[in-house]
Amino acid sequence: MATLGLIEYSEASPEVREIYDDIMATRQTDWINNFWKALAHDLPTLRRTWKGVKQIMAAGALDLLTKEMIYLAVSATNQCGYCIASHTAAACKAGMTNAMLGELMAVVGMANETNRLASGYQVEVDERFRTPK
Amino acid sequence: MATLGLIEYSEASPEVREIYDDIMATRQTDWINNFWKALAHDLPTLRRTWKGVKQIMAAGALDLLTKEMIYLAVSATNQCGYCIASHTAAACKAGMTNAMLGELMAVVGMANETNRLASGYQVEVDERFRTPK
Amino acid sequence: MATLGLIEYSEASPEVREIYDDIMATRQTDWINNFWKALAHDLPTLRRTWKGVKQIMAAGALDLLTKEMIYLAVSATNQCGYCIASHTAAACKAGMTNAMLGELMAVVGMANETNRLASGYQVEVDERFRTPK
Amino acid sequence: MATLGLIEYSEASPEVREIYDDIMATRQTDWINNFWKALAHDLPTLRRTWKGVKQIMAAGALDLLTKEMIYLAVSATNQCGYCIASHTAAACKAGMTNAMLGELMAVVGMANETNRLASGYQVEVDERFRTPK
Amino acid sequence: MATLGLIEYSEASPEVREIYDDIMATRQTDWINNFWKALAHDLPTLRRTWKGVKQIMAAGALDLLTKEMIYLAVSATNQCGYCIASHTAAACKAGMTNAMLGELMAVVGMANETNRLASGYQVEVDERFRTPK
Amino acid sequence: MATLGLIEYSEASPEVREIYDDIMATRQTDWINNFWKALAHDLPTLRRTWKGVKQIMAAGALDLLTKEMIYLAVSATNQCGYCIASHTAAACKAGMTNAMLGELMAVVGMANETNRLASGYQVEVDERFRTPK
Repeated sequence: MATLGLIEYSEASPEVREIYDDIMATRQTDWINNFWKALAHDLPTLRRTWKGVKQIMAAGALDLLTKEMIYLAVSATNQCGYCIASHTAAACKAGMTNAMLGELMAVVGMANETNRLASGYQVEVDERFRTPK
Repeated sequence: MATLGLIEYSEASPEVREIYDDIMATRQTDWINNFWKALAHDLPTLRRTWKGVKQIMAAGALDLLTKEMIYLAVSATNQCGYCIASHTAAACKAGMTNAMLGELMAVVGMANETNRLASGYQVEVDERFRTPK
Repeated sequence: MATLGLIEYSEASPEVREIYDDIMATRQTDWINNFWKALAHDLPTLRRTWKGVKQIMAAGALDLLTKEMIYLAVSATNQCGYCIASHTAAACKAGMTNAMLGELMAVVGMANETNRLASGYQVEVDERFRTPK
Repeated sequence: MATLGLIEYSEASPEVREIYDDIMATRQTDWINNFWKALAHDLPTLRRTWKGVKQIMAAGALDLLTKEMIYLAVSATNQCGYCIASHTAAACKAGMTNAMLGELMAVVGMANETNRLASGYQVEVDERFRTPK
Repeated sequence: MATLGLIEYSEASPEVREIYDDIMATRQTDWINNFWKALAHDLPTLRRTWKGVKQIMAAGALDLLTKEMIYLAVSATNQCGYCIASHTAAACKAGMTNAMLGELMAVVGMANETNRLASGYQVEVDERFRTPK
Repeated sequence: MATLGLIEYSEASPEVREIYDDIMATRQTDWINNFWKALAHDLPTLRRTWKGVKQIMAAGALDLLTKEMIYLAVSATNQCGYCIASHTAAACKAGMTNAMLGELMAVVGMANETNRLASGYQVEVDERFRTPK
């Protein structure tokens, strides 16, 4: 169970409820997942994290689906069980098909493999890759 | 320097040259980056890795740009210097703008943060996230 | 379940019991947690690990609470479920309040984020940071 | 070199300068390290990251020195060269002695070892560690 | 549960069955473990991964037992619960004794510790280690 | 450069020299690599780490070559530049051929790939893998 337990909406302070309300409105859902309920024990972290996620995940130069797939790729690389589960759901909701999931995981697997081959063989960076864009 | 050194085209065996040729033809470039030259000391690994990368990175349910950005997201998470350099270049070539790079890194950073918050607070996976798609 | 099972005090060899006794005496508890019971299948590892932990975690230039929080920060970064659970308990016993836990996790999250931003943007180390202390 | 290069104060936009000024004022220094100059290519990330770091690293339930040591512990665990260099400097400035650095690294090393022993031996979490605080 | 569920032999396509048959024949077992049943939703990944594993794990310059122990060492370092469980079983089947498991884990633990000490103390690579073999 | 600099034999205390002497005698070499010279600033860590490495790397149920290859596999997975360089040298000295290095890296790469596929697809551990040996 979560270290400090989960704070449900009904027992939350007005400040926490305000953030819960914004999460539900932004995501167009009627529930709050456990991650936020666990963070709610530390209001500054809850507020800062939600503001950051809301800003970062808004469509911009990249659309939401691409961002959710990147989030899932990072979570699978770090092997964070909670985040794999929650961002698989989020990516599916944003339009990820099973075929896209399969290709995403294939890239994640291959990148994790070649990262270690490059490091393990001590490959030096090519001169052409060193210049800033 | 690379553990076993780098095998240049001019000194490569016919089997290695065949793979080098396929890499250059597939990527429409006239050079081979150090990663492949280091792997060339182990022909089965060179062949299997290139075949895998070629298959995985071909456009399918996801386009090349999205795949290169996922590759870069994984490499940044693992902090593999070589792969960050080479896949930043590859993603740029595939069309990644500076604005897209910025949003990509923002997602990578936030995912790495929330992965640890979820694990650190020992958040249990929500029932709704447990069912297979 | 643990790969080789857990060795309970009642079934332990005299050498293992001696270490169990020292663990309980040092920590002023009357029980042994599963980690040590699993390691007990390999006496040299049990002995070396306990001696190392006992030496390292003794108050010195840093007090026990600070050390337990650092232990927890590493475990959260590595996302080791067992160690997050056990060192959260140990840190609480050493005096970590909920407010301290919140700030600790905030630092852990932010460090994990900026580690990837620094690597992902390929930031070179400043000259001023290169000189030894 | 940094992917997008570094933005020096003299060439920075007013918005970036405002953040640079706040960094220098908060840290009571007269220079900006490369990390921020690299992030400055993406104003929202620069602003959000600095605001987060400023908030999180302010003294609260934990003092600055403890926070800098936790930051360094995470950076050493992730093996981020840039952040190890910069946060070693920051921790020293905040009062970390060589003896404290030695004990910090000893805890980091041991935690990384026992994290893998706990996972590698598949040790199940003790019942006593499962209940929320 | 697995994101896309598990594909049992009885419900598998002929292409998937062919791979399942080859896995069972190669490993001289009469069952398929969940990893392959989960990958079976993406035929190219199932086929490429199995072909890669089959090729890589065949006895060559290194025997199967050594390879399985290396596989387990990597999985313990990454703390992948599934792979620790499956490759512990595979290594035992290949002849790993409890004493060998103990020594393997001791090396894994120590390597994870010294990796962070070397990085944390910012140790530069010795000149003698820089030359290719 | 190393955070606290390197302590050369000529400037070392008698306690440090004793350990340096034991390292050279045990390894049958006439020099000390930078790792130990950096650790020498913290005598308890130098002593404990060397004693641990000496004990763990001694031939037992596993021979030295196998242990050095496992050490290298972990270091490549963690992408520790220093340890990859030093343990590649140590494994070569212990008898690792180029062919063995190639197969080792192939296993390391594949294990890093399948670790993420298993976690990314959220594969549950098979019942058969759950029972202790």
